[in-house]
Amino acid sequence: MNAALRDNPISPTVDFARDGVQHGHLKLPYSRDDSAWGAVMIPITVVKNGAGPTALLTGGNHGDEYEGPVALAKLAQQLQASEVRGRVIIVPFMNTPAFLAGRRTSPIDAGNLNRSFPGKPDGTVTQKIADYFQRYLLPLADLVLDIHSGGKTLDFLPFAACHVLPDKAQQECAEAAMQAFGAPWCMRMLELDAVGMYDTAAEEQGKVFITTELGGGGTSSARTVAIAERGVRNVLIHAGILAGEPAPAESVLLDMPDGDCFVSSTHSGLLEMCRDLGERVEQGEVIARVHDVQRTGTPAVEYRAKRSGLLAARHFPGLVQSGDTLAVIADVLG
Amino acid sequence: MNAALRDNPISPTVDFARDGVQHGHLKLPYSRDDSAWGAVMIPITVVKNGAGPTALLTGGNHGDEYEGPVALAKLAQQLQASEVRGRVIIVPFMNTPAFLAGRRTSPIDAGNLNRSFPGKPDGTVTQKIADYFQRYLLPLADLVLDIHSGGKTLDFLPFAACHVLPDKAQQECAEAAMQAFGAPWCMRMLELDAVGMYDTAAEEQGKVFITTELGGGGTSSARTVAIAERGVRNVLIHAGILAGEPAPAESVLLDMPDGDCFVSSTHSGLLEMCRDLGERVEQGEVIARVHDVQRTGTPAVEYRAKRSGLLAARHFPGLVQSGDTLAVIADVLG
Amino acid sequence: MNAALRDNPISPTVDFARDGVQHGHLKLPYSRDDSAWGAVMIPITVVKNGAGPTALLTGGNHGDEYEGPVALAKLAQQLQASEVRGRVIIVPFMNTPAFLAGRRTSPIDAGNLNRSFPGKPDGTVTQKIADYFQRYLLPLADLVLDIHSGGKTLDFLPFAACHVLPDKAQQECAEAAMQAFGAPWCMRMLELDAVGMYDTAAEEQGKVFITTELGGGGTSSARTVAIAERGVRNVLIHAGILAGEPAPAESVLLDMPDGDCFVSSTHSGLLEMCRDLGERVEQGEVIARVHDVQRTGTPAVEYRAKRSGLLAARHFPGLVQSGDTLAVIADVLG
Amino acid sequence: MNAALRDNPISPTVDFARDGVQHGHLKLPYSRDDSAWGAVMIPITVVKNGAGPTALLTGGNHGDEYEGPVALAKLAQQLQASEVRGRVIIVPFMNTPAFLAGRRTSPIDAGNLNRSFPGKPDGTVTQKIADYFQRYLLPLADLVLDIHSGGKTLDFLPFAACHVLPDKAQQECAEAAMQAFGAPWCMRMLELDAVGMYDTAAEEQGKVFITTELGGGGTSSARTVAIAERGVRNVLIHAGILAGEPAPAESVLLDMPDGDCFVSSTHSGLLEMCRDLGERVEQGEVIARVHDVQRTGTPAVEYRAKRSGLLAARHFPGLVQSGDTLAVIADVLG
Amino acid sequence: MNAALRDNPISPTVDFARDGVQHGHLKLPYSRDDSAWGAVMIPITVVKNGAGPTALLTGGNHGDEYEGPVALAKLAQQLQASEVRGRVIIVPFMNTPAFLAGRRTSPIDAGNLNRSFPGKPDGTVTQKIADYFQRYLLPLADLVLDIHSGGKTLDFLPFAACHVLPDKAQQECAEAAMQAFGAPWCMRMLELDAVGMYDTAAEEQGKVFITTELGGGGTSSARTVAIAERGVRNVLIHAGILAGEPAPAESVLLDMPDGDCFVSSTHSGLLEMCRDLGERVEQGEVIARVHDVQRTGTPAVEYRAKRSGLLAARHFPGLVQSGDTLAVIADVLG
Amino acid sequence: MNAALRDNPISPTVDFARDGVQHGHLKLPYSRDDSAWGAVMIPITVVKNGAGPTALLTGGNHGDEYEGPVALAKLAQQLQASEVRGRVIIVPFMNTPAFLAGRRTSPIDAGNLNRSFPGKPDGTVTQKIADYFQRYLLPLADLVLDIHSGGKTLDFLPFAACHVLPDKAQQECAEAAMQAFGAPWCMRMLELDAVGMYDTAAEEQGKVFITTELGGGGTSSARTVAIAERGVRNVLIHAGILAGEPAPAESVLLDMPDGDCFVSSTHSGLLEMCRDLGERVEQGEVIARVHDVQRTGTPAVEYRAKRSGLLAARHFPGLVQSGDTLAVIADVLG
Repeated sequence: MNAALRDNPISPTVDFARDGVQHGHLKLPYSRDDSAWGAVMIPITVVKNGAGPTALLTGGNHGDEYEGPVALAKLAQQLQASEVRGRVIIVPFMNTPAFLAGRRTSPIDAGNLNRSFPGKPDGTVTQKIADYFQRYLLPLADLVLDIHSGGKTLDFLPFAACHVLPDKAQQECAEAAMQAFGAPWCMRMLELDAVGMYDTAAEEQGKVFITTELGGGGTSSARTVAIAERGVRNVLIHAGILAGEPAPAESVLLDMPDGDCFVSSTHSGLLEMCRDLGERVEQGEVIARVHDVQRTGTPAVEYRAKRSGLLAARHFPGLVQSGDTLAVIADVLG
Repeated sequence: MNAALRDNPISPTVDFARDGVQHGHLKLPYSRDDSAWGAVMIPITVVKNGAGPTALLTGGNHGDEYEGPVALAKLAQQLQASEVRGRVIIVPFMNTPAFLAGRRTSPIDAGNLNRSFPGKPDGTVTQKIADYFQRYLLPLADLVLDIHSGGKTLDFLPFAACHVLPDKAQQECAEAAMQAFGAPWCMRMLELDAVGMYDTAAEEQGKVFITTELGGGGTSSARTVAIAERGVRNVLIHAGILAGEPAPAESVLLDMPDGDCFVSSTHSGLLEMCRDLGERVEQGEVIARVHDVQRTGTPAVEYRAKRSGLLAARHFPGLVQSGDTLAVIADVLG
Repeated sequence: MNAALRDNPISPTVDFARDGVQHGHLKLPYSRDDSAWGAVMIPITVVKNGAGPTALLTGGNHGDEYEGPVALAKLAQQLQASEVRGRVIIVPFMNTPAFLAGRRTSPIDAGNLNRSFPGKPDGTVTQKIADYFQRYLLPLADLVLDIHSGGKTLDFLPFAACHVLPDKAQQECAEAAMQAFGAPWCMRMLELDAVGMYDTAAEEQGKVFITTELGGGGTSSARTVAIAERGVRNVLIHAGILAGEPAPAESVLLDMPDGDCFVSSTHSGLLEMCRDLGERVEQGEVIARVHDVQRTGTPAVEYRAKRSGLLAARHFPGLVQSGDTLAVIADVLG
Repeated sequence: MNAALRDNPISPTVDFARDGVQHGHLKLPYSRDDSAWGAVMIPITVVKNGAGPTALLTGGNHGDEYEGPVALAKLAQQLQASEVRGRVIIVPFMNTPAFLAGRRTSPIDAGNLNRSFPGKPDGTVTQKIADYFQRYLLPLADLVLDIHSGGKTLDFLPFAACHVLPDKAQQECAEAAMQAFGAPWCMRMLELDAVGMYDTAAEEQGKVFITTELGGGGTSSARTVAIAERGVRNVLIHAGILAGEPAPAESVLLDMPDGDCFVSSTHSGLLEMCRDLGERVEQGEVIARVHDVQRTGTPAVEYRAKRSGLLAARHFPGLVQSGDTLAVIADVLG
Repeated sequence: MNAALRDNPISPTVDFARDGVQHGHLKLPYSRDDSAWGAVMIPITVVKNGAGPTALLTGGNHGDEYEGPVALAKLAQQLQASEVRGRVIIVPFMNTPAFLAGRRTSPIDAGNLNRSFPGKPDGTVTQKIADYFQRYLLPLADLVLDIHSGGKTLDFLPFAACHVLPDKAQQECAEAAMQAFGAPWCMRMLELDAVGMYDTAAEEQGKVFITTELGGGGTSSARTVAIAERGVRNVLIHAGILAGEPAPAESVLLDMPDGDCFVSSTHSGLLEMCRDLGERVEQGEVIARVHDVQRTGTPAVEYRAKRSGLLAARHFPGLVQSGDTLAVIADVLG
Repeated sequence: MNAALRDNPISPTVDFARDGVQHGHLKLPYSRDDSAWGAVMIPITVVKNGAGPTALLTGGNHGDEYEGPVALAKLAQQLQASEVRGRVIIVPFMNTPAFLAGRRTSPIDAGNLNRSFPGKPDGTVTQKIADYFQRYLLPLADLVLDIHSGGKTLDFLPFAACHVLPDKAQQECAEAAMQAFGAPWCMRMLELDAVGMYDTAAEEQGKVFITTELGGGGTSSARTVAIAERGVRNVLIHAGILAGEPAPAESVLLDMPDGDCFVSSTHSGLLEMCRDLGERVEQGEVIARVHDVQRTGTPAVEYRAKRSGLLAARHFPGLVQSGDTLAVIADVLG
């Protein structure tokens, strides 16, 4: 730990070294107009049983994504210490203020937690949370699984993902864990702009890191929660923390090789998607239209695919603003 | 028209009696802090060709429902006067202020247009819009189609619907039009509380009225917009306004016979749906859980089906508040 | 019940005619942007045991007053049917939306429930609540106790109160109940403007009605909650619903005979109270000063007592606005 | 006074029947979250000297118009009882909550005071103010002068105005008073929609009523305040309340004969005015353009004069919304 | 002064070196949407008379604490240069934007001034104020008194306080000044987290620093203002700036030796305090309960004292959120 | 370019090296609650024709100033590559989020772009825009013209301006360009606090920089837009980018030699300007009054000129707050 840094003000009410099941909080003092001596309370569960690897499982990194919170809240209710070899640290609502508000970012400081790493111990609330994961929780972990979905404004085909990394051995471990997760799709991602991401923070500490996108729209369904639950257990089995065999699953491997995968709008208006998630699109095809919202009778603006592939992600809300990503078209690798 | 009422302040920039295609606005003067002499401008298209029936087609009655606005904006762009016998009046964004804000209700006065009928010519902006439909547009129409979806907080199986009415001949006409629409599901509804609804206003004027719920979540998809577009054309053909044959469609008839169809939450928290839209559920089965958002390890509250049937509607957002309807279970009539 | 009125949309989940203890809600459907099929859920407890009088006990009529909610929430947890003869209806958070927001008035419609009677079944949320009390709950009651405090902006000497009424027999019953309550002070009030009050609605139905002011500032203390708890039990004993003897108490009787009791500010600024609650003040004495907040060195504006008496109420916040009541000076009758 | 109506809750701290100069308030009790026992305090000055006519002078009917407030605040500071024959009632900030917020409408209830007549004694704050003028202040007056300007979103050539009235004798009196005011321009107005206006309320009580538009933009200047001050004194001299000769002035008479005077926008964007206030425009000439704010290079939308005349009013802010009035073109009568 | 730092943009309108009484402002330019060339104006008074020590007296460090602002506004009105030996610098509303808004933190930047030291000359408004005290005002002072109370969300027994310091001579001077203040209680504090505090900034510059907590709830009373006024004069006499004898007072010395003094809530709900300020509590005793606000009949959560002592502080509002400090229990040293 | 800095995330959709006319955007990815994968889209036009100097023309640096946006939007629509020698880069709405909101500062981060230089590539949205101009656009330019006006809260005599610079050759070039612009007035400014300004950033890179103030009040007029359009063309001709002769203009040179030019208010209230823009004022003369808004009859506070000169700028809104600049009085140099 960097001696020059002041201590992070967060104090855990659980003991990470103790065997058994503990439910508690990460307590972050937060003085404000409506509570001078208040705190942000981040729920956490630690399940530990002797020696063995540590998995750090997180949901709610963005506060409007629900498969992770549901699957991890259920795991925290169910997991017994006796089932475990090593340790499982579960933080189902990582950016708790954002999660409680049902927002991507924190209502306190507009912080996008997933772009706030490595954080600051004397920064905003979101930066303090990032710093605590950076300097206290990530170092405890061998394997890190961060469950995302599209949130209120994006929708995705459900996939697990890992990054192309400079350390190929580390990348292989991540790919194996991604495959073990068993989502319907897998995505190998070359992050164009990895600055500030939790992913990068974990990978730079040499951890096996996998993430997901399991749906979107600010909701979850029985189907997508089942993917998350099965994926979490598969990964814990894969890591040797839970016993047994992973539930079998067949994944299709996707790739987003360059910026042509993205179709963005330069108009604001009423969105009409012409293809749905999972459908095949051909280069040059109209995949979306933006209609005028102030008058009838004007032709819609058409947006076409710059490449062929599978519609893997889309803008979710019915209205669109100039600059919004309308769709992502992925390669199917098999 | 009631002589005692003052005139509605809305003035149309189209002439309802003129043949041809006209794109214009319903102009409602609205003096406010950011524009002393401003107006609410509601886009409208009139397509008329000689004598014949009049269809009044509306979307955006609730501002966060998108199948109607997309299908009707497209129809307004495409429909030629020569295709038509009689008249089609298209208002794709009925509660325009709500639609532009992406909200169910109006940002001006929090008005839920579909609960504001018969409206008031000297009331709030939403009440003035209702009054204009009540006293000026509905009287022009023979057939009224109002396209709804679930909006940002509900999701529905896509269905067309009509009401159980005291006048059985009127009800038969509405049922025939509903069947003609050709949605995957049809719903015969006994409205428990019909006060203030546009539906009731139209039906009390003796009109053939049909409505829909075509999805939800504050989005639309290629699939649900296609249902809306095909349905609108089918209905216009059925009414004799467009020529040709309706696109064939097979509908399953649903019924919501009583209040036991509804499952409501008395807890606030994180929602886990245990069944998805269109799935069969059995009486007594757990169909949803509400998880604690302030701590881990507490058992979730379980909500069970009070009757067997098909999951026809659900709460959409990932968080739920006490009092929210979680799910609707419908009977399948065939 | 007035046949011309439509039904109130509130449905109770308790059966007022059933013996035993029931905890439930008054459910008021409320469609809005963040929940199309949501509801306001007003907690209610009914404790009934055979024949006997009915007491209707309410707190949270203003949402920022806490002695009533605490005392009644505790009573609802503790009261056994076997202790009761007749019926006790407990609504600890009467204006639930205001109470949950910690505000005097409703965040939904800015409604001051205590000025919304007789209410409207098709009005705003607050008006619907008022109508339900007016037409459904008040008719069930013999005795009505509505527990108030000063809320976030006023502070009071703790007193029970009843009104000067045209029906002297009714007034005598109310005075007896007020005395039974056993607060440190009692107040006989001649309401100058009784329009829209719950008090008036209850009294016009011939009920024995008493109210209180038990402190203020948007808080409660062990001392003021104890006054409320003892008062509620004393009143139920007095009404013959609970057995036993009232806890003895000595009350000082106060009077607010005319408008000279009130000292109001015509300046905005920093408030300095020169006398505290319960202190004796003499006519002409400076009881408060308002200091300039934009500069130092300017003389404060002085406010003087227009009559001698006891300081019975004061403006609570440290800042004051022009038009605010600074203090109330009451006569001590003994 | 209508006996069926309850009393208006406003109490004046001045005595309208007393000779001399009195500065006080109209006090309107207003219970709210931040002051349970607060009040709206509307400053008022009464200057009376024996028998004679009463003039009621108001500014701040819309809260973002400043020539009236400045001129009348100064008059209230300066006017001596000895100068006066009869009575002058001065309310410089008529809709005080709107005025203090610098807004056209009230921040309390969004009320546009000038569209709230005749008001309601048990309505919103704005409606209560209207009712007090309707039933208490207007009946005291012989002559009523209400000073307006364009506010934050309109700008006007400075003119005094009166209405075309059914009672021609009353209209002649008003025209004479308008001429006496001595603004650079005069306007004879045929109000198309007079519902709810203070003007109408005064005229229906048979008062001599004149109004003005003296500039706009939410500011005032030395020049426009001078017009207001001179106009007020001229009118009081004309009414026989002040002695002396009116300051001489030459007015140009304008007319707005029909709806073609108004040019409205059906686009939102960046406004370019091609003519300035007071300039002559010819029918068919481009008087304004609306530029796209989301991209460069697209042609601006042009708005043309529907008739020839003088540019008498314009939209003031640099951005414009669909529905806004861009300009008013008046006839010059001489 | 650090030469590398740019100048602080604040300019005082008083001359700290001039003898006599000066009332002026610290003027901090602040360009914003509603005033491009505006400024934050912090009132300040300087009373100087020849050579002698300098006392820097502040209130309103948190904007919702009122004993300091009232006592210091009065002192600034009353203090004559001839009474003084040396200099008194009075800033009654230190975080003026917060004070004018009645909030703990600044409405401009959410800055908690007492956690913003040493500040930044090119930072936010709050950071600029901190920097000005850090680099311009603290260096002028020998003795620094910063008057706090609990604000809107805490309530305290009235005490003066100083810190345990590494420099024991400095600590002794502070303790003597604290005793001289003469509050009913005194508190020797070991600040667990002193980062960013004004206290620390003053102490690190070697100043004699004392602070207070004199009540709370966002109000003040005649009693607590009297404590503040007497304390300020006592401290100035103690420092040799005012002549005379300190008003005698008997203080009880309290101690908060470790984290067990604090009782925090991990539930949100309705707060019931079971003990009041100043009461003795025993270890294990229930001192507060949190009641469910969504339903009746559920048992309240109980919070117990972790140690015996005196209830020295409490959460003030009637509602509580998870993470809030409920109470502080202090040792009585005598 | 500083190698240590990360790349700016903005990507242009135009190619600065390509000949011809290009209309595109500077695309700044901006992830937020209402669009996870959204972007700020800043419109830009590049007109290039072979070798030659580059002019960088900007409006909307403050989002409520309109002469620059209108003149530059028109130039972008009209300018042909064939007219140009070298390159013209046009950014009419520099702080696009502020411009679209009609606010001086950005609604995203409250950033005042003109005080955010040199910016940060990983800072707020406003800081990223500043960084992009600092490191990518300014280096491309020889001449930089940034068109300002007073915005919603200030009004100016229309002038072009340049700064007193340490490099006298650079200053001479700027003065020549300022004279070429041809505004009615010119101003030579000694910037007292140049920290963070775009001006300074450009000048420190050795560019010829000129700016303007062309009016104010949050509007524009035909007259002020004509000054801007003529000025832009004159400057491009002066720079040798456009051919032809500058439109002739006569400018009066003004000077603001010291802080006595500024008159500031220390009171809040209703503003009365006693002199208008362009009028001569004498030292000691009353140029503005501030009237009490809470009561009538109190004398206004008078503000007097500290020096003689021309009224060159004023506070625009009708209300004024303590700390606001009321007026600027400039020397007329000839």
